[in-house]
Amino acid sequence: MNNYKLVIQYDGTRYQGWQKQNSGVNTIQGKLEAIFEELNGEPTSVHGAGRTDTGVHALHQVANVYVKQDLSEEEVLQYVNKYLPEDIAVTSVVKVIDRFHARLHAKKKVYQYCISNSSISNVFRRKYTYTIGEKLDLKRMEEAANELVGTHDFKGFCSKSSSKKSTTRTIYSIEIQKQGDEIQITYIGNGFLYHMVRILTGTLIEVGQGKRDICTIQEILTEKNRQKAGELVPGKGLILLDVIY
Amino acid sequence: MNNYKLVIQYDGTRYQGWQKQNSGVNTIQGKLEAIFEELNGEPTSVHGAGRTDTGVHALHQVANVYVKQDLSEEEVLQYVNKYLPEDIAVTSVVKVIDRFHARLHAKKKVYQYCISNSSISNVFRRKYTYTIGEKLDLKRMEEAANELVGTHDFKGFCSKSSSKKSTTRTIYSIEIQKQGDEIQITYIGNGFLYHMVRILTGTLIEVGQGKRDICTIQEILTEKNRQKAGELVPGKGLILLDVIY
Repeated sequence: MNNYKLVIQYDGTRYQGWQKQNSGVNTIQGKLEAIFEELNGEPTSVHGAGRTDTGVHALHQVANVYVKQDLSEEEVLQYVNKYLPEDIAVTSVVKVIDRFHARLHAKKKVYQYCISNSSISNVFRRKYTYTIGEKLDLKRMEEAANELVGTHDFKGFCSKSSSKKSTTRTIYSIEIQKQGDEIQITYIGNGFLYHMVRILTGTLIEVGQGKRDICTIQEILTEKNRQKAGELVPGKGLILLDVIY
Repeated sequence: MNNYKLVIQYDGTRYQGWQKQNSGVNTIQGKLEAIFEELNGEPTSVHGAGRTDTGVHALHQVANVYVKQDLSEEEVLQYVNKYLPEDIAVTSVVKVIDRFHARLHAKKKVYQYCISNSSISNVFRRKYTYTIGEKLDLKRMEEAANELVGTHDFKGFCSKSSSKKSTTRTIYSIEIQKQGDEIQITYIGNGFLYHMVRILTGTLIEVGQGKRDICTIQEILTEKNRQKAGELVPGKGLILLDVIY
């Protein structure tokens, strides 16, 4: 068996997220596992670094997969791309040591949330941004973001169905950039809880709209009360930009 | 009657081009005219600056339309965007003098053709680029592009069904830029014949692949023979970037 590290790019619009579900449910992992099952002649797991939700995109998702045949990296790349639909692509294949595991060994993940801050949605970015017509105050949002950076118990910023035991995570940085009418919020952390990036973003948006005081951030971190945090913004604005090992 | 100048953005993927056709054919002009017909209570023409082909996109198409009611620019903008599908947006409305005509008064048009120069198509740009795996020689392409700049009879670089009487046009500039794996060729001219930008691009690509000598450009301009020019590249890589008055 050879262990291959895959870098995967996908447009999540048509998919019910990364994680394989019952047959008939369209998922990225499901598509990839079907292709490697064909290659190996038996059910094959593709271990992804992060489980992106319904509608969430990836520029650089990482996964690993064991293949029985001794194929070159280029051969695996060609094979898998031949069978993938046009909204999923494997952009790189590297042979790695047997014990490499894409999820367990990931050190940092980089997610970006994109907001179209205009009264008219950008036609070309409509599947990759969440449109908010009223102008957001970026200075206030940056101030609130600074309160979130660091090691905290983010229980108040995740959805309940998270099965993770510990809800403590470290956010290394949150950067807010404006490009034309688009606001991009980039989160770098050692890991993110279920819905965490989308709830953090919803909370920062409320600060930017002036609907929420910056001091509520500390309250949510202390009280760990999901009810006090902002709304869950749509999956389509979120993209997994990178996984760092 | 009030004359309004509209700036229109569209993702051409789902459309049979700009120009209205028989009912049942999905076109950008058809969508807009149906909305203004509703507003005026009678058939209403929306005069576009350029007739983009099937699958071709626009960042800044310009059109003008006469409206019976005396509506503010903002009212027209709101009204039309309320009824447009998500892949078409009017981004600006300006009241103009009665005799303004979007097509007849256009001085320059800016088109861009986007090539994904990679063995793996970029998932997020798949609807807006034409993928060519083999590396293109940009220096050669620039040299060939320089031969095209100026006032020439471009008969050899257009498809036959062009009903235009004169086939002489002026190209002010052709700029070739590389951004990551993407090559963008930007054409500025006083007007373009049927399929002209796509045939020029197909010809430049063959130069970049080393399949065609640069001197053939002059031959096609002199002999006006479509057979000698390059292939017609797909519409999806083309976007109308701007119309200048």
